[in-house]
Amino acid sequence: MNEHLQAFIEETKFVIDEKLPQSIRALNAPASLKDAMIYSLEAGGKRIRPLLLLATLKGFDKSFETGYELACAIEMIHTYSLIHDDLPAMDDDDLRRGKPTNHKVFGEATAILAGDALLTHSFERIASSQLAPEKVVRLIKELAIAAGPVGMIGGQVADMEGEERALTLEELTYIHNHKTGDLLTYSIVAGAIIADASEEDVERLRHFARELGLLFQIKDDLLDVEGEQELIGKPLGSDVGNNKSTYPSLLGLNETKEVLNAHYDVALESLHKVSMNTNLLESLADYIKNRNH
Amino acid sequence: MNEHLQAFIEETKFVIDEKLPQSIRALNAPASLKDAMIYSLEAGGKRIRPLLLLATLKGFDKSFETGYELACAIEMIHTYSLIHDDLPAMDDDDLRRGKPTNHKVFGEATAILAGDALLTHSFERIASSQLAPEKVVRLIKELAIAAGPVGMIGGQVADMEGEERALTLEELTYIHNHKTGDLLTYSIVAGAIIADASEEDVERLRHFARELGLLFQIKDDLLDVEGEQELIGKPLGSDVGNNKSTYPSLLGLNETKEVLNAHYDVALESLHKVSMNTNLLESLADYIKNRNH
Repeated sequence: MNEHLQAFIEETKFVIDEKLPQSIRALNAPASLKDAMIYSLEAGGKRIRPLLLLATLKGFDKSFETGYELACAIEMIHTYSLIHDDLPAMDDDDLRRGKPTNHKVFGEATAILAGDALLTHSFERIASSQLAPEKVVRLIKELAIAAGPVGMIGGQVADMEGEERALTLEELTYIHNHKTGDLLTYSIVAGAIIADASEEDVERLRHFARELGLLFQIKDDLLDVEGEQELIGKPLGSDVGNNKSTYPSLLGLNETKEVLNAHYDVALESLHKVSMNTNLLESLADYIKNRNH
Repeated sequence: MNEHLQAFIEETKFVIDEKLPQSIRALNAPASLKDAMIYSLEAGGKRIRPLLLLATLKGFDKSFETGYELACAIEMIHTYSLIHDDLPAMDDDDLRRGKPTNHKVFGEATAILAGDALLTHSFERIASSQLAPEKVVRLIKELAIAAGPVGMIGGQVADMEGEERALTLEELTYIHNHKTGDLLTYSIVAGAIIADASEEDVERLRHFARELGLLFQIKDDLLDVEGEQELIGKPLGSDVGNNKSTYPSLLGLNETKEVLNAHYDVALESLHKVSMNTNLLESLADYIKNRNH
C-alpha cells in the first residue's frame, strides 16, 4: 500500500473509529442500547465504505467535513446489516472479526434493536448535515434505495433463498450486486453528488463502483479459499463447508482470477474518464484487488 | 363516532389499506420479501397515525395528497416495529390482530428483513415526495428522531428492561412517551410542518399530541382490564398475567380514569389555541378516549 493511501486511511479510520462512537454515546437513549450500538461500531473492520466516499470527495478537491455525516451514516448502515445477518435466525454466527457477535454479548432482543437503531439514526445524521437541502434529499433517497428492499435487503433475501441449492453465475452476481454492491456503489456515488459532479461523471463513477463491488466480493471468495485464517478472523473454507455457491466453485480458481482482473480493468477504464484526481480511488481499487484479508 | 369522522376514516383507510400494499408489490425486489412486507401492512389495524397526520392537514385546509407519502411512511414504520416486537427474541407473540404474526408465517429471518425493509423504504418514500426540499429534510430528521434510539426504540428497550420489576409512574410514563408516544406525536407535528403552521402552532400541536399519546396508552391499559376480548384480538388481562406495570396496576382503576380525563382536558386546551379547524382532531381525541377496542 502506498504512503499517501496509508495516511488517508488513518485519517478516515480515526474519524470513524473515535468520533462516531462518541456521537452515539452522547445520545439521550438507554445506556444498554447505546452500549450495543457502540460495541459493533467499535468492532473494527476496514471502513471501506467511508474510505470510498471520502476518497471520491478528495478526488474532487472537496473537504473531508462535507462528507463526514454521510460517512458515519453509511458505516452505521453497514454495521446494522452485520448485526442482523449474524443473528441466530439468519447466519447464526458467534464470531465477527474475531470478537463475539452482538447478540452473543447483549442478547438477541437488544441486538435486533441496536441494528434498528443504527439504521434509523443514520437517516437523522444525513438529515442533520449542512449540505443543501436538495442534495440531502437526493442522498437520502439513493441511500434508502441502496440499503432497502430493492438493494441490500433484497440481496440478503436472495442469498438466503439460494443457500440450499446451486446457483447460476447470473444469480450469484445478482446477490453480490445487491447484498454488498449497492452500498459500496452508493458510497462513491454519494461522494460525487456532494461534490457537484456532472451527471455524466456520476454515472461513470457508478459504473466504476459496481465493478469495484464485484471485485470486492470475488476477492472475498478467493480469500476464503486461499487466505490465511488468522488474518480473516473467521474459519477458513467456511463457504466450501456450507456448499455455498461462490465464484471459485462455479468458475474454478484460474478463471475466477481472470474475472477478477477483467472487472478491475473495466472499473479503471470507467474511472479514467471522470474529471477528477483519480489517484486515491485507483489506490483503493488496487488495495481491494490485492488485499490478503 | 360522528358521520364526518367516519367518512374521513374510510377515505384514509382505503388509501393505506389498498394503495400502500400495491406500491410495495410494484417494487423490483424478491417476491417473498414483498409478500412478508405486505402481509403485515394488510393485517389491518386502526391506521391511527395516518389518520392523525391527515386530520391535521385537513384542519389547515391542505389536500390529502400533500401528506400521502408521509402517511405511508409512518404506517410502514409502525408496522415494522410490530413485526420486530412480535419476534421470539422479543415478545414472542403468535397472534397479532387475530392473525398469525409475521415470523409465524414467513419464518424469523424473513420477518426480521421485512421489518428492516419497511423501515428503510419509508425514508425513500418521504424523500420521493413533492414537498419543498427544506421541508422534506426536516420531516426526515424529526421522523428519525421519533422512531430512533432517542424515541421509539429507546422506549422499547426501557419497556423490555422494566418487564422484570415494578415500575414507578415516572418510568412507565417515559416508556409510553417514547415507545408509542413519539410516533403518534410525530404524525401530528408532521401534518403541521407540511401545512406551514407557525412554530408556535407546531409546538401547541406537539403538546396536544403528547397528551393524546398518553391518553391512547392509558386507554389501552384500561381496555386490557375492562375490554371485551373478541374486540381487541389478544388474550384479555395479558398485562395482569405478566405482572406488567400499567396505569391501573399503579394507580387503581378509578384514579386511572381520572388521569385519562385530565390528559384529555389538557390536550384539548392546547389544541384550542391552534389557528386551524380543530373538529377532526377533537373527534379523533374523543374516539381514542372512548373506543372499546
